[in-house]
Amino acid sequence: MARPLRVALGQVNAVVGDIAGNEERIADLIDSAREESAQLVAFPELAITGYPPEDLLLKEHFLADARAAVERLAARAQGIVAVVGFPERAADVYNAAAVLAQGRLAGIYRKQSLPNYGVFDEVRYFQSGTRPAVIEVDGVTVGLTVCEDIWQPGPPMTEETLAGASVVLNLSASPFQAGKALEREQMIAQRAKDSVACVAFCGLVGGQDELVFDGHSVVIDHEGVVIARAPQFAEHLLVATIDPTAARAARLRDTRRRPAARGIEPQVDHLGAFTVLGDEDAPAPGPAGEVADLLDDEAEVYAALVTGLRDYVHKNGFGKVVLGLSGGIDSTLVALVAVDALGADRVTCVIMPSPHSSPGTQADSRALAANLGLRVLELRIEDLMGRYDALLADVFADVDPDITEENLQARIRGNLLMALSNKFGWLVVTTANKSEMSVGYSTLYGDSAGGFAVIKDVPKLLVYRLVEERSRRDPVSPVPDEIVTRPPSAELRADQRDDDSLPPYETLDAILEGYVEDDLGREQLVARGLDADAVDRVIGLVDVAEYKRRQQPPGPRVTSRAFGRDRRMPITNRYGG
Amino acid sequence: MARPLRVALGQVNAVVGDIAGNEERIADLIDSAREESAQLVAFPELAITGYPPEDLLLKEHFLADARAAVERLAARAQGIVAVVGFPERAADVYNAAAVLAQGRLAGIYRKQSLPNYGVFDEVRYFQSGTRPAVIEVDGVTVGLTVCEDIWQPGPPMTEETLAGASVVLNLSASPFQAGKALEREQMIAQRAKDSVACVAFCGLVGGQDELVFDGHSVVIDHEGVVIARAPQFAEHLLVATIDPTAARAARLRDTRRRPAARGIEPQVDHLGAFTVLGDEDAPAPGPAGEVADLLDDEAEVYAALVTGLRDYVHKNGFGKVVLGLSGGIDSTLVALVAVDALGADRVTCVIMPSPHSSPGTQADSRALAANLGLRVLELRIEDLMGRYDALLADVFADVDPDITEENLQARIRGNLLMALSNKFGWLVVTTANKSEMSVGYSTLYGDSAGGFAVIKDVPKLLVYRLVEERSRRDPVSPVPDEIVTRPPSAELRADQRDDDSLPPYETLDAILEGYVEDDLGREQLVARGLDADAVDRVIGLVDVAEYKRRQQPPGPRVTSRAFGRDRRMPITNRYGG
Repeated sequence: MARPLRVALGQVNAVVGDIAGNEERIADLIDSAREESAQLVAFPELAITGYPPEDLLLKEHFLADARAAVERLAARAQGIVAVVGFPERAADVYNAAAVLAQGRLAGIYRKQSLPNYGVFDEVRYFQSGTRPAVIEVDGVTVGLTVCEDIWQPGPPMTEETLAGASVVLNLSASPFQAGKALEREQMIAQRAKDSVACVAFCGLVGGQDELVFDGHSVVIDHEGVVIARAPQFAEHLLVATIDPTAARAARLRDTRRRPAARGIEPQVDHLGAFTVLGDEDAPAPGPAGEVADLLDDEAEVYAALVTGLRDYVHKNGFGKVVLGLSGGIDSTLVALVAVDALGADRVTCVIMPSPHSSPGTQADSRALAANLGLRVLELRIEDLMGRYDALLADVFADVDPDITEENLQARIRGNLLMALSNKFGWLVVTTANKSEMSVGYSTLYGDSAGGFAVIKDVPKLLVYRLVEERSRRDPVSPVPDEIVTRPPSAELRADQRDDDSLPPYETLDAILEGYVEDDLGREQLVARGLDADAVDRVIGLVDVAEYKRRQQPPGPRVTSRAFGRDRRMPITNRYGG
Repeated sequence: MARPLRVALGQVNAVVGDIAGNEERIADLIDSAREESAQLVAFPELAITGYPPEDLLLKEHFLADARAAVERLAARAQGIVAVVGFPERAADVYNAAAVLAQGRLAGIYRKQSLPNYGVFDEVRYFQSGTRPAVIEVDGVTVGLTVCEDIWQPGPPMTEETLAGASVVLNLSASPFQAGKALEREQMIAQRAKDSVACVAFCGLVGGQDELVFDGHSVVIDHEGVVIARAPQFAEHLLVATIDPTAARAARLRDTRRRPAARGIEPQVDHLGAFTVLGDEDAPAPGPAGEVADLLDDEAEVYAALVTGLRDYVHKNGFGKVVLGLSGGIDSTLVALVAVDALGADRVTCVIMPSPHSSPGTQADSRALAANLGLRVLELRIEDLMGRYDALLADVFADVDPDITEENLQARIRGNLLMALSNKFGWLVVTTANKSEMSVGYSTLYGDSAGGFAVIKDVPKLLVYRLVEERSRRDPVSPVPDEIVTRPPSAELRADQRDDDSLPPYETLDAILEGYVEDDLGREQLVARGLDADAVDRVIGLVDVAEYKRRQQPPGPRVTSRAFGRDRRMPITNRYGG
């Protein structure tokens, strides 16, 4: 008769490079877990260093510092077993899980499956481990896995469970994208059912440059039922009591889950058997843990933007942010996110009207800022526009006004925001959405100038949905109706509208989803029923704007394919499609 | 008695994504090689698609188009055997060499060693091949390898030569860095001697975004002697006659090169035996081929910059470039490179004096431009500086002038250059060197605004050496002496000098080499004899400038560790060292 096991999952917001800070946070949570009577506590993948540390992993002294932190933490592992992710420097470097027990580093498991696709570059840094591993805690056998290990069917989890593990830990740093939490949970549930084992998934939380981690730590029993779930996008210590009795009984009946019936001998490292509780102290079986709700689609993306911005600001030591308010939907969304991330007193808005700015958009900007309680600066750019025109008059004598003058307006605004940033130390947050970023409808060094591009991975139609979602939270929406209903315009020349030169956003976003996220070619897009001329036009615009995207600030990834480390296209590229 | 083999190496400047253009160029060179009586002609790694195609390799239609081009080229392989690099879509995707003979695709070798370090991401795209492969051409056994395959000692080359290959082809796309040509040649010579086989190395040439390929195709005999070498940094068809007789005789004597003595059975695919020449047409043994000189250190880097700029401009469809001339050494070097890359009639210089610009630097700028025959525009920025100050006067009422006003000057200049770019379609080339880029001594959206950063990977001291190198080529140097002798200054405030706020460049560049290129930590740098305070200061500056570097335009990599795809550091990073 196996006793229940009380497991804690330390869903921490580890900061990349902050080894001392991460160590301290982990140490505190080890203590908290012990106070909660947990026998076993787990932390995310590379919790010691933050994820992804990128080329910091190529520094010997960085790896040595990480190891030293693990050794110090081991001393804290008294009366509890802790499993902590760290980069292990041995003959090669491994993405590893350290088992800390009885005051020492008792063993190490090395991640086997190294992701090297999408945003991941793990083969650049790590060697694959080759040995599945288990530990025994108060008589319960626990398998160890790190992140990608569990996204592949098969070993190491199958080996570990065949070797007797009734609980499998997964130390994870799984970047958020829309809908991924549900997908992740379904995958884990399937793994749990396939192996008739409980899975305890400990997720990293927080923003790191282009990535946001949603946490979403979860414990799923051997029948695929969620028995505990942490809230997304927040630090949390999730505690759950797992009763392995039913899983062991089910496996006894279902001989497919027993090695003898499979004719195999599982090859597994036994890293140690640890006694935490005396027999009389065994936790009682019973209600497992809290089960937080998963956020719905829009709320989840909105929370990711808030987390991404808040962590970029705080982790990089900024106090406040500044943004240009245009009266359009994009800067409205960014203002809302900024207020929710930082509080109104840390957000300054700048309204920078030109002769092409309509009274309506200016009034809406002021109303929005007032409703949100934001400080507003107004700087009229007409005089500067005239001065640039005058300086360039001789050189431009024989040519007509064109996009040059439009870009100058945007760049004057960019200069003003950057001057405020330089003078007061505010971070400039930019407001271009993914649809614009895709087709190059933003001005390099103009509206794209700044430190963090909050909605760069949010397509235009989703921008509207997010503003609606956020507006519903207040009894009275802070967003003037006209901002939502007015046809989008950059207001860089008289009577300009986005749909003068772009397909309607319904068409544009559908083409972009196919072209950018799904790597479809022209013929496949047309076969989806999309207008052939629009497809050709959009593909051409996307390809030629690659040089602009390369110079954009980072911003949080929320789709399955973000520009940046996720979609890596050459600038010099004649393929066209 | 083996007959000699006449081999041609098609050192082509393949353009990424230009499958049709690359196909045409390869087809022409197959014909030229046949006219030169070559029996075998090789082309670089991924010659069909250009290198690196990055995420184009994730598009099914791109891979299908590449395959179709290979099939069409096969029809041209009559009376000659051609080996061409292409991405092969099979159950997975392989970095492959197609053997084209007798009018058909006769076989495929798959690269085994996939680089995934430095600038390389091949594991993201490719599966490793597992089978060494040989072909037989007029009785000579030829082993096939692709790039990284030969940078590792051992298989596939050792297997192929043990299986009888007396010649080994290497299809390569090996990015330039200073000194690499010599290093590469020494490595190949060692491989040739280790296996007692001739190596024919066919290198890609040309610029692709951040990378420059120096070509450097070379044929090295079984004693490690260079018997033919193509000029670096130029398209070229290198033809050489290889006599395998001596190698075969040497291997008969040296039983270490025979499988029986090693107790192994080489596992090698035989992709076909091809007859090109009748017995009576066998080429005579004799002088092997031309041997171009390798460039010396500075000339090589200078040529890389010229190639990088020229190809970025031409491959992206620009006609002309524009740059700001300050009278300093950096913009001087960029102007020289631009003239050599494009010709003086395609380069416009802009002199944009502020009240802080000295008469000396302005006069030197004009003299340099005149000496180089460049068109000059002069735009004085004082009025605009005053207008920005006036607009911001209320907001800045309680704070002193600081770096904000310096940055505004740089950003006004950036705006003017970008206005010229927008109006006339000129590419803006920027002038910041690697030392400045490292410590963040450039203004984002100011002097760093533009499409190509020509010297972003050239440390300051090397900037001087390159200007000297280039100056010596003309009977009278086009560079006014004062540009070389004047202490460096950004001239953004009165009496400013770089060494007011930075260590001398001798110290700075030494710290940067250790910190950026060699990943050394503080203690190791100090142990090298570098001043501890300067080390601390520089490390801090480098780390905090990561966000700026992320928004820089691309520029050619010439050191062992360039910013960009080579050195991948997080922006959010508390490590500090």
